[in-house]
Amino acid sequence: MNALGTHLLLELRDCDSKSLNDLHLVREMLTSTAERIGATVIGDSFHEFSPQGVTGVVAIAESHLCIHTWPEYEYAAVDIFTCGDSIDPEDAVPYIVTALDAGDHSVISLKRGILPAIPNAVGVPATAGSGV
Amino acid sequence: MNALGTHLLLELRDCDSKSLNDLHLVREMLTSTAERIGATVIGDSFHEFSPQGVTGVVAIAESHLCIHTWPEYEYAAVDIFTCGDSIDPEDAVPYIVTALDAGDHSVISLKRGILPAIPNAVGVPATAGSGV
Repeated sequence: MNALGTHLLLELRDCDSKSLNDLHLVREMLTSTAERIGATVIGDSFHEFSPQGVTGVVAIAESHLCIHTWPEYEYAAVDIFTCGDSIDPEDAVPYIVTALDAGDHSVISLKRGILPAIPNAVGVPATAGSGV
Repeated sequence: MNALGTHLLLELRDCDSKSLNDLHLVREMLTSTAERIGATVIGDSFHEFSPQGVTGVVAIAESHLCIHTWPEYEYAAVDIFTCGDSIDPEDAVPYIVTALDAGDHSVISLKRGILPAIPNAVGVPATAGSGV
């Protein structure tokens, strides 16, 4: 399919509440996941909320990862958006599921930037396009 | 519906290539859009790529906004994820479409965190939960 990017929407349920409320753990988990799947981290912003919950966004050379946690519901929403074919964002899923001790999870995979002008965008090396 | 957040996936086509490649414009556009819809910006990370393209992530108290641009295809992918019911993320769409001079666009709206344990999460004020 002529798409520029792949976007995973990860729903994590029955997670460990303490982990979801640990800014350091969540930040380390998401940035190390980015590195483990071969992405290049270029910036991030993480915040801890009162009384609970963490939000984090990680810009990578290949697009982004982000997380929002609700410890009181043992729930987290994670997005993994990558472009190019040098990275498979699905490789990130087991790391995240394990790190947050999610008892249940689901993944939706979407293609972004489906453009007829791209002959074979998904097959283009990450360095050949912009925004990657 | 018992959901914690609303996530808009915005596909912008036939945009102004020069705007898509202007880091300052893209950053100003996305952060001011967040503020215009009533969100509280708590951090951001923007980057310009060589030879072209911009990536930006904006953490807001209500979740996040992000953008990835491909000037060579006149295309941008934008996400707007908000929680609570104090903000309508769809209010952001006209600002973004106008700022990038998008000739064509589409929006997918998804609910995130659909949990049976939440009696009426969408109706809960943003300050009542965590991660919001």
